[in-house]
Amino acid sequence: MVQILGDRGVTAPQGFRAAASACGLKPSGAPDLALVVSQHECTGAGVFTRNQLPAAPVILDRETLRENSDRLWGVVVNSGVANACTGAAGEQAAQEMQRLAAASIDADPNQVLVLSTGVIGVQLDLAKLELGIGQSAAGLSADNGLAAAEAIMTTDTQPKQLAVSVELPGGAVTIGGMAKGSGMIHPDMATMLAVLTTDAKVASPVLQGLLGDAVEQSFNRISVDGDTSTNDSVLLLANGASGVEVEDASAVARFAEALESVCQTLAQEIVRDGEGASKFVTLSVVGAADEASALKVAKTIATSPLVKTALAGEDPNWGRVLAAAGRAGIKLDPNRISLWIGSAGADKLQLVQAGESAGWDPASAASILADPEITILLDLGLGQASATVWTCDLTHDYISINANYRT
Amino acid sequence: MVQILGDRGVTAPQGFRAAASACGLKPSGAPDLALVVSQHECTGAGVFTRNQLPAAPVILDRETLRENSDRLWGVVVNSGVANACTGAAGEQAAQEMQRLAAASIDADPNQVLVLSTGVIGVQLDLAKLELGIGQSAAGLSADNGLAAAEAIMTTDTQPKQLAVSVELPGGAVTIGGMAKGSGMIHPDMATMLAVLTTDAKVASPVLQGLLGDAVEQSFNRISVDGDTSTNDSVLLLANGASGVEVEDASAVARFAEALESVCQTLAQEIVRDGEGASKFVTLSVVGAADEASALKVAKTIATSPLVKTALAGEDPNWGRVLAAAGRAGIKLDPNRISLWIGSAGADKLQLVQAGESAGWDPASAASILADPEITILLDLGLGQASATVWTCDLTHDYISINANYRT
Repeated sequence: MVQILGDRGVTAPQGFRAAASACGLKPSGAPDLALVVSQHECTGAGVFTRNQLPAAPVILDRETLRENSDRLWGVVVNSGVANACTGAAGEQAAQEMQRLAAASIDADPNQVLVLSTGVIGVQLDLAKLELGIGQSAAGLSADNGLAAAEAIMTTDTQPKQLAVSVELPGGAVTIGGMAKGSGMIHPDMATMLAVLTTDAKVASPVLQGLLGDAVEQSFNRISVDGDTSTNDSVLLLANGASGVEVEDASAVARFAEALESVCQTLAQEIVRDGEGASKFVTLSVVGAADEASALKVAKTIATSPLVKTALAGEDPNWGRVLAAAGRAGIKLDPNRISLWIGSAGADKLQLVQAGESAGWDPASAASILADPEITILLDLGLGQASATVWTCDLTHDYISINANYRT
Repeated sequence: MVQILGDRGVTAPQGFRAAASACGLKPSGAPDLALVVSQHECTGAGVFTRNQLPAAPVILDRETLRENSDRLWGVVVNSGVANACTGAAGEQAAQEMQRLAAASIDADPNQVLVLSTGVIGVQLDLAKLELGIGQSAAGLSADNGLAAAEAIMTTDTQPKQLAVSVELPGGAVTIGGMAKGSGMIHPDMATMLAVLTTDAKVASPVLQGLLGDAVEQSFNRISVDGDTSTNDSVLLLANGASGVEVEDASAVARFAEALESVCQTLAQEIVRDGEGASKFVTLSVVGAADEASALKVAKTIATSPLVKTALAGEDPNWGRVLAAAGRAGIKLDPNRISLWIGSAGADKLQLVQAGESAGWDPASAASILADPEITILLDLGLGQASATVWTCDLTHDYISINANYRT
């Protein structure tokens, strides 16, 4: 039902164009400014960080969406500078960035959303921004989705974009998206941004509900502190260019499925590109009393430095997995706990039975853990609820990248 | 009032002897078994992990203290094997370890406490244990405090012991202690053990209260998940050999101060010896609405991988400190936040004023951060409450140690 459109992103849906430029916010001279603009007025939705010190663009976008979620035309994104912890000057800079981007496409300021990502505590250079916005506005094209995805990268090693088409009762619609972030491995910095577009016609309250649900099942499953960094933002613009409405229950359900698949794939790409990551890990907790408990246990394991370093060392140190589960704040019964590991190329291997070693073969474990994509399955044996999160390992490269990020 | 006794530990108080032996639980052949025995019957107290999967010795000690906290004679400790996640066989092994140690000193089984630390999920070799307990029992001496502190080490690079004497209204008493652990840098494994002794006479309910308070101000301030690993335990035996009672309020207050100083010093030594640590960081949060909020913010910052890698890189990346504070779940006002760093050799340097960069001198920041002992002071500007925690940086050596711990 949901069909992936190869090599396409935010400009895959009808009526969206994008552009990127290098305006000097990144010392490297790499592209650092992206514009995504619709040719039709859009409804919009956003999900933002819950950090108590939100970045200036987060404050501004919340206000813009509150006042004007039915009359949006685009998104402007800069990388290199997060515009977080920048005080009143930072808030004014975000407003000026919004004004400049809106003027460049003949829109009102409150018809454009603003995103920033990069170093915290540094003020935006508005002269550079103005230059970049002008250049980008002149270069808007439906061919520039990938260029936009590249311009929003920071420590990412690869651009992340995706588009899918889904058949609704009224016809086919397309959902596109791009994201940046080096993932859950550092959930507490200005890491994760995503811009999603669709040519479906969706009322803004419906769009907000659908986006919230999709984020909960995707970006919020790659990080313990999911939405608590200073800049984390996911935006979705719907311009209705397909003429297909998402209104009745059946259309909403299908659209929701497609949107979730876009968000999950982008979220997984963030983990795959996690700073220093050498393993992509799908961690499922089953047999929990309720989903919240399953998720709490899964996130505690997925962020344990000891579990993550053991994965880096390809060490089947199952005791660390159980110890992390034990401190998740959920009541457990050791006698009911089972644990398996697996990979694409090998059968699942049971490491733990009734809370103790299941007497497994070290060679089989080693062969599974040598795979770059690993699954971990923990059965608590207490109920029917489950949750899946995605994580990566913790390696020397993570330390190297983060000990010298600013310098 | 509290006087430090140099180079002394658990055998500093009158009437305590100790011994250590190497019984082969550690593949390296290093000492791995310690006995601490009193020549007088003791009252005892214990503070244990809140992990939902407690190790077998934790389960056993809780039961022993519940039933018999006024008639204790000693503690047996092994390193190399944690006896955690070992099921019914592990619980029987802990009981057998207790029985063997008690028999070796002519006590009843429920008069000896048991501690284990090391790899999770491996069964204890009881034949080796029996050998080690026999050897240790034959070698008990007041000179063996340091040997015992060495025998309980795992990834520790240094033994950790301390003794103090304090003048009470009825005379002087001594408190000694030893600890092992590589600190808060990995709060979720079988890390932290401490055995404390005193020749004061203290009723067991009083002793338990005093120990709980001291642990809260020390070992629980070096780790977000302080008491939630599978094996974390702090034991205190009081044998009354000094003839000095800790009963009236003045004596209790002075004894509490001395006990807290022993626990804080041992806790700080654990941080200094943190796996791979190159920096010792004293982190104080002041100006909080209440102490719980101050502690929550301090612990969130102290365990942030991004803050800890920045410290390793000697990078004054204050934005990461603020971003961590912002996700601690406490309401903050960015406009009231200030941040300073300092070291023994330099004046405090203000990095943040009203939530923004204070316009500091990079050379001064670099010189402070080059020091192996750093202070961080965060003022939330919201109230009068404060909390201090101790932490260390996150380095390549941490990854190396933990990626290959079992292998």
